[in-house]
Amino acid sequence: MSGATVPSTPAGPGAAPDAGGAAEPGAERPVEPGALLDAGLFAPVRAGTPVEAATSDTAWLRAMLEAEAALARAQAGLGTVPEAAARAIGEVALGGELDVRAIARAARETANPVVGLVRELTRAVAAHTPQAAEYVHRGSTSQDVLDTGAMLVTARALRLIRADLERAANALARLAARHRDTPMAGRTLALHAVPTTFGLKAAGWRAQVEEARARVDRLLAGGLPVSLGGAAGTCAGYLEYADLEHAGHGGPGPRADAGDYLDRLTDAHARETGLARPVLPWHARRTPLADLGAALSCATGALGKIAVDVQTLARTEVGELAEPGPTGRGASSAMPHKRNPVLATLIRSAALQVPAYALVLTQSLLTEDERSGGVWHAEWQPLRECLRLTGGAAHTAVELLEGLEVRAGRMRENLAATGGQVVAERLAARLTPLLGRRPARELLARASAEAARGGRPLGEVLAGAPELAGLLPPAELDALLDPSGYTGAAGPLVDRSLRS
Amino acid sequence: MSGATVPSTPAGPGAAPDAGGAAEPGAERPVEPGALLDAGLFAPVRAGTPVEAATSDTAWLRAMLEAEAALARAQAGLGTVPEAAARAIGEVALGGELDVRAIARAARETANPVVGLVRELTRAVAAHTPQAAEYVHRGSTSQDVLDTGAMLVTARALRLIRADLERAANALARLAARHRDTPMAGRTLALHAVPTTFGLKAAGWRAQVEEARARVDRLLAGGLPVSLGGAAGTCAGYLEYADLEHAGHGGPGPRADAGDYLDRLTDAHARETGLARPVLPWHARRTPLADLGAALSCATGALGKIAVDVQTLARTEVGELAEPGPTGRGASSAMPHKRNPVLATLIRSAALQVPAYALVLTQSLLTEDERSGGVWHAEWQPLRECLRLTGGAAHTAVELLEGLEVRAGRMRENLAATGGQVVAERLAARLTPLLGRRPARELLARASAEAARGGRPLGEVLAGAPELAGLLPPAELDALLDPSGYTGAAGPLVDRSLRS
Amino acid sequence: MSGATVPSTPAGPGAAPDAGGAAEPGAERPVEPGALLDAGLFAPVRAGTPVEAATSDTAWLRAMLEAEAALARAQAGLGTVPEAAARAIGEVALGGELDVRAIARAARETANPVVGLVRELTRAVAAHTPQAAEYVHRGSTSQDVLDTGAMLVTARALRLIRADLERAANALARLAARHRDTPMAGRTLALHAVPTTFGLKAAGWRAQVEEARARVDRLLAGGLPVSLGGAAGTCAGYLEYADLEHAGHGGPGPRADAGDYLDRLTDAHARETGLARPVLPWHARRTPLADLGAALSCATGALGKIAVDVQTLARTEVGELAEPGPTGRGASSAMPHKRNPVLATLIRSAALQVPAYALVLTQSLLTEDERSGGVWHAEWQPLRECLRLTGGAAHTAVELLEGLEVRAGRMRENLAATGGQVVAERLAARLTPLLGRRPARELLARASAEAARGGRPLGEVLAGAPELAGLLPPAELDALLDPSGYTGAAGPLVDRSLRS
Amino acid sequence: MSGATVPSTPAGPGAAPDAGGAAEPGAERPVEPGALLDAGLFAPVRAGTPVEAATSDTAWLRAMLEAEAALARAQAGLGTVPEAAARAIGEVALGGELDVRAIARAARETANPVVGLVRELTRAVAAHTPQAAEYVHRGSTSQDVLDTGAMLVTARALRLIRADLERAANALARLAARHRDTPMAGRTLALHAVPTTFGLKAAGWRAQVEEARARVDRLLAGGLPVSLGGAAGTCAGYLEYADLEHAGHGGPGPRADAGDYLDRLTDAHARETGLARPVLPWHARRTPLADLGAALSCATGALGKIAVDVQTLARTEVGELAEPGPTGRGASSAMPHKRNPVLATLIRSAALQVPAYALVLTQSLLTEDERSGGVWHAEWQPLRECLRLTGGAAHTAVELLEGLEVRAGRMRENLAATGGQVVAERLAARLTPLLGRRPARELLARASAEAARGGRPLGEVLAGAPELAGLLPPAELDALLDPSGYTGAAGPLVDRSLRS
Repeated sequence: MSGATVPSTPAGPGAAPDAGGAAEPGAERPVEPGALLDAGLFAPVRAGTPVEAATSDTAWLRAMLEAEAALARAQAGLGTVPEAAARAIGEVALGGELDVRAIARAARETANPVVGLVRELTRAVAAHTPQAAEYVHRGSTSQDVLDTGAMLVTARALRLIRADLERAANALARLAARHRDTPMAGRTLALHAVPTTFGLKAAGWRAQVEEARARVDRLLAGGLPVSLGGAAGTCAGYLEYADLEHAGHGGPGPRADAGDYLDRLTDAHARETGLARPVLPWHARRTPLADLGAALSCATGALGKIAVDVQTLARTEVGELAEPGPTGRGASSAMPHKRNPVLATLIRSAALQVPAYALVLTQSLLTEDERSGGVWHAEWQPLRECLRLTGGAAHTAVELLEGLEVRAGRMRENLAATGGQVVAERLAARLTPLLGRRPARELLARASAEAARGGRPLGEVLAGAPELAGLLPPAELDALLDPSGYTGAAGPLVDRSLRS
Repeated sequence: MSGATVPSTPAGPGAAPDAGGAAEPGAERPVEPGALLDAGLFAPVRAGTPVEAATSDTAWLRAMLEAEAALARAQAGLGTVPEAAARAIGEVALGGELDVRAIARAARETANPVVGLVRELTRAVAAHTPQAAEYVHRGSTSQDVLDTGAMLVTARALRLIRADLERAANALARLAARHRDTPMAGRTLALHAVPTTFGLKAAGWRAQVEEARARVDRLLAGGLPVSLGGAAGTCAGYLEYADLEHAGHGGPGPRADAGDYLDRLTDAHARETGLARPVLPWHARRTPLADLGAALSCATGALGKIAVDVQTLARTEVGELAEPGPTGRGASSAMPHKRNPVLATLIRSAALQVPAYALVLTQSLLTEDERSGGVWHAEWQPLRECLRLTGGAAHTAVELLEGLEVRAGRMRENLAATGGQVVAERLAARLTPLLGRRPARELLARASAEAARGGRPLGEVLAGAPELAGLLPPAELDALLDPSGYTGAAGPLVDRSLRS
Repeated sequence: MSGATVPSTPAGPGAAPDAGGAAEPGAERPVEPGALLDAGLFAPVRAGTPVEAATSDTAWLRAMLEAEAALARAQAGLGTVPEAAARAIGEVALGGELDVRAIARAARETANPVVGLVRELTRAVAAHTPQAAEYVHRGSTSQDVLDTGAMLVTARALRLIRADLERAANALARLAARHRDTPMAGRTLALHAVPTTFGLKAAGWRAQVEEARARVDRLLAGGLPVSLGGAAGTCAGYLEYADLEHAGHGGPGPRADAGDYLDRLTDAHARETGLARPVLPWHARRTPLADLGAALSCATGALGKIAVDVQTLARTEVGELAEPGPTGRGASSAMPHKRNPVLATLIRSAALQVPAYALVLTQSLLTEDERSGGVWHAEWQPLRECLRLTGGAAHTAVELLEGLEVRAGRMRENLAATGGQVVAERLAARLTPLLGRRPARELLARASAEAARGGRPLGEVLAGAPELAGLLPPAELDALLDPSGYTGAAGPLVDRSLRS
Repeated sequence: MSGATVPSTPAGPGAAPDAGGAAEPGAERPVEPGALLDAGLFAPVRAGTPVEAATSDTAWLRAMLEAEAALARAQAGLGTVPEAAARAIGEVALGGELDVRAIARAARETANPVVGLVRELTRAVAAHTPQAAEYVHRGSTSQDVLDTGAMLVTARALRLIRADLERAANALARLAARHRDTPMAGRTLALHAVPTTFGLKAAGWRAQVEEARARVDRLLAGGLPVSLGGAAGTCAGYLEYADLEHAGHGGPGPRADAGDYLDRLTDAHARETGLARPVLPWHARRTPLADLGAALSCATGALGKIAVDVQTLARTEVGELAEPGPTGRGASSAMPHKRNPVLATLIRSAALQVPAYALVLTQSLLTEDERSGGVWHAEWQPLRECLRLTGGAAHTAVELLEGLEVRAGRMRENLAATGGQVVAERLAARLTPLLGRRPARELLARASAEAARGGRPLGEVLAGAPELAGLLPPAELDALLDPSGYTGAAGPLVDRSLRS
């Protein structure tokens, strides 16, 4: 950072960087064209994580080029594009460099980046193998390329997400097993309710992460279709050009059996890309996008649930959990002593955003005609945000859960905080056969109030209760009041869930 | 409607019905306590449809009572509640009447309606069979009852929805088959693109409705779990009372093998209610709710897509579709001639709301502790709205689709609207081998512009183009310009999708 | 609750109440037609509060009838409806009873409830004063009546909300003043940061409630317009009938100066209803609805912020705040000792829902044509939900804040929980001139770590630090470590904010 | 684009760019570190528009540096930072270059980018003027810097938005004036209702854009506050360091009158930045963000309303409007003849997204404590998206509206499409005094049906109706049937709205 002239007047809030004009203070420093528009500065949850590169503009452009290459290969396999042309298209598409920003700006002219991309690709193919150029994007339409590319990007991002969800689930399984019998307060509506174990809590977290993983798996196993519809979903262009190519070779064209040709073309394109094969073109049937939004919301919801629990249990007064703390992590700019739960913070920030972005995908189901003017276009950014925030959250969760610090001692101390009231439910049950249902509850309510008023343990008050004289030996009362003896089926539930 | 005194002064906007005070005009007419809070006046999409009754407050209360009865039966089957007590609880729970409004108001004291419901139920059981009263809600917690009740209500509503989705899909299959070869304009970005068929459009609608039905089926097949967790998800209360009951009979209690007892209790409760069996209590793991929101958004999305297409095609200038029109339907209060597409309007109004309500369910995944104070409570209304709006939309869609009027003649007329430009893609393909790729496209662009400028058919302009002289016989040009000859694989695609 | 026959088989989940069929268990109990669809059972936050009645279906129907009556009066004032007819319409409209459910069901035929309402009103007026009947809804359209009615209902609900926001703000002002100097831990990212005061916290809450109130006031002062547009926003119907009426009396009709007549009619209608006067008809310009959603989200956001803070501070381990606790409030169905923070829970449940409902209103800005088929219709339910949830939340907040229990002692105890680290920022500042910036920070980090490790107070560790020997007298160190001495400008900030 | 080796196997969908491994096809091409993460490829609505640079990561970092510089200047003005130090900080902060990606990645350690930024700034200041380094970020906290920076960025973006809204409104005013009397069909529920004028439509669009502009103006006039709260909103750090500085000079520190010092410091900081002065620190009172979301949703809603209307009116069958068409604009990759309404498409895509992003801002009102761990962090991306999508939409709208092609002839032709039924409301009114209300409506309904059935004009059918024989001279009937004679008050409404 080198020194520079300081403006002589304060910068007014309205001084837009590019507004220009001598009277505008601050305006002398326009943001240069090469400025980074979004390098993750405001999304630390994903900054630098693998999913970020996997969903970058560059990755997306490449995936669209792969879609073009795969289409040409598929057509070549069916004899409707020359092998040499398909090879040339593949070499150029998979090898070169494109000016992302130029294509982005050109997209303003056509409302999508494919027209410009195809123009660039055609130009490059023509330079490489002139006679191959006319086979670029043969019979195709922008949406086929963009949607196929989007599914390729999505598949890669989902694999990253899936792997991190699996690692997170494994870390949780270890926590659940290790703390199967570590008692802690079960909390409802912010208050201690009855005891539970940290193992059961971790098992519940894991179950939810596994539910999310199952939903991601379901998508990877067939929920990401290749797009092959042509201008309006009838595949007419693909057939027309295929026919022409055949006509050039003298034979009857594939339109003679359009359905069969199309079946084989779709199969080949799906095979080439590794994507699923749709029954029908899905230009205007956006269930795959809505499913993606749902699965990714499920994933960040599962991780976000963990994050809010970690934050709650990391509170200064609670102190039952702490984040793993490498040097510098969690530092505050003002308070040297703090070790902030930053990983939980990052995860939660993602989990608060993803459902809203997924909403745009769900609402995009209401798309008109064979292709909407605007609804389709509104999907792109939310889809990417969902993928990269979820990927970032999953990556961050692995770090959080593999190093989570569990303070069993503090859990035990906190269990004592209510002076025994945390087992009031159990006492109510046990006193019922001795005193009857209503008298038992009345005694407990009275004793609880008295204990709270006097700051005394509930056990002490009960020990002196005349109603119980002779009915409950002190040792039995003590045993009843031990929170670790009232964790219900927590242990067996952990066992069962880890086997599932 | 009987006459009454008219206020002497106009009603000011701030005159709240209950604000009272002589100076407040309009204030003399407080809304009486028995006023209907929500009878569907502002949700005509579901007013009077079966799903409305299936999701009413009354239905929900009954479902919660069924949950209580089923729990007692399950416990009785395991010997931890006397058979007679379970029978009494069942008779009372399934037979009586409750004051819904009183329970709703009492819910303000405890933030949920179960506490008041259990109080009423206990009172009624005590009146019926005094010794059974203590077995009501035995070892249970509000959330178990409310969530199990919610799943019962949901299951019933989903069956209604499923049945209507199936009927809608069947109607669409008939439309697709009947109009397999009915040509119409394929439209993208609001403009005619290339021809398609109404059959393919209907097949696409059907495929999406079927996708929605598959998601509903998935939920019905195991996505709606019974809730059995007790105060904080450890099932401690269930075990404690079970043990007590056994102790009363001298034997060793089930806590000796808590996991086994709980397995059997959960199995029995699931069997009694017909709901799914969760691996772990799910008080704070709300994937089922998020899945519901997703599936219902998918359903209204599928129906809403149809609705916006119907509206577009029913536009005065387009006129390709019309809604079924029984007497009075679609009447306007101002314009005697209009027959509004009201069914599509109703469906669309639901489809615009459901994703937003489902969002609340997705966001509720971020629930803290063993039970949140507020997040759980925020789920109830959105869940019901999703169910009843989807149910209303599906019911309305059946009516729309079973009577949809398809005007094939108008479709054919509209196909001619661009004077042949709708087959420009085909012409570009066919002229390429004759002229070369770029000259072919340039000729077409020039001819299209000239045709548009002069209001002449594209064929006429092309017929006079010197570049084509001798290359394209008039009959062949005519054939190329016939839109019904350029519907690609529309027919075979319809066949394939109807077989799937 | 009376006994009844128990079903011999368990009720399956799919047994829809109306599904019928002998094989369907549970199906024998259809929900009767009179069942309450929504009496607030799942919205305890508003159950029984004044806003509920003010926004009921009944209230809405009445408001629409008032709109009709006001329109007739306005027209009568301009001589285009006979005085006697307007009087008859007013008497009937404001006096009678309507069958809400019948109108709701009829709304399915026309997609809105106004057509049926006007039919009923016309019939009733005809019975009362036959010659007045033709003046009902004269020149008008459904949307004018529905929107004007909606604004009347909204105005009344907003007044209730405003009054409760004001009471809540007053309660907060008292809390802020009383606890101006009550120290407590300031918490960031879940951890103690530096001290603050409860007064400053309460002042911040109040400022936000006041911001919400200001937004409600802005709407009440001119944001709720009367609707007067006629069939497509040109007011042609109003003018046509007015002209006819004049023609009947021989004079030149108002269409001669249409603008002037319309100005006067709109003024009169606004005056009659107490609503604002729009510049242009707003059938398809829905800014007022978006503004409503924004203002109500602001209100529940302000109240929800308080609710989450109250919950946090009411946690068992924190215990700094408690809700007011009348008998029965906050009772748990399972745990006799708990006093749940139910008011905060209710408020939070509303605050989690309102923004999602408001989203539907914002998205409805994208309404096509002169009146959308579906977008307008999607506004009605979300608007009502926003109003009644906000009204319920505000009403509940008054109860919470007027009785909030503040435990200053516990706040002071918790401030000690970090053994002095809560004032680390101050120590860093004070040690800087003594040691230099970096050495000071390093000493503090080291001492904090050592204190945390050994469970010792930070002060004790620092007192023994050789770097500080002779630099910081023990008394000064003690004073620096007193959290109540490091509350910054909390006191003056409270003073300033209460004066604003 | 240069050729390269083609992978020998097809790329599988799961081949994540960085997954590595020989068996993974496609994995050999990892996305390089310098890949562009987001250059606007999927947001063509804002790609290359001024708002994009104004909201870039670079712009945001600069704004945060300006916040640091302004704070130092403000403190220097009050004598609590040396003038020379403030000058050095300003020179360095406003002059240098930072590694955005490095700071983004470092933000993962602290959950926000400020800690890393301050570290870099301090280092650079130390290199420039060693003794100034300790005055960097003096007494401050990350949130003060980030929020102040965010408001600076917001202010600049809002000015751009405001200017474009104004230009759009001006273009609309010209359209409204020019087409004050251009008749067209008014459409409701997708059907022709009654005539209106294009001028009135444009006037309505303009009114809504002006409403949006007024909301932006309100924010610029005081809704964007500077942030000055210190670690937990008490300003303690600012005071402590100020005191120290004074102590160094021997005088009594500002804490003696903390409120006054803070008033002056806040005033100076507001003045230096040109932002508003808050009454209280607003770290946890996020009304400004919710207001921003609301205002920007209003803006995209206003523009989106125009976009959907333009799309509707540009439909092939309607053809009343066309987008301005420079070379290449609106080209399709498949169909050479199409001129897609891409500007409306881009605007609509933004309008469909912004409300969902704004929702995150509204929900962030529910932030706990003095600073939330996650809720605050979730605001950053949605805020930027709202700003840049709105800015892009406004910029695009100017282009659309300044060149919009209005086809008055086509409007007139379409008005004839219903054969006169578009004036049925008028006929109903006019026939009423001749025939009575009910007979008039019955005649019209019958005649309308007959006309529709026979494809005859309504006027022809009515001319032959025996009921009207002698009552309505042919010339009068003709005049009544002229749609341009039934545009109500459209003209005067345009005049009035343009004067407002």
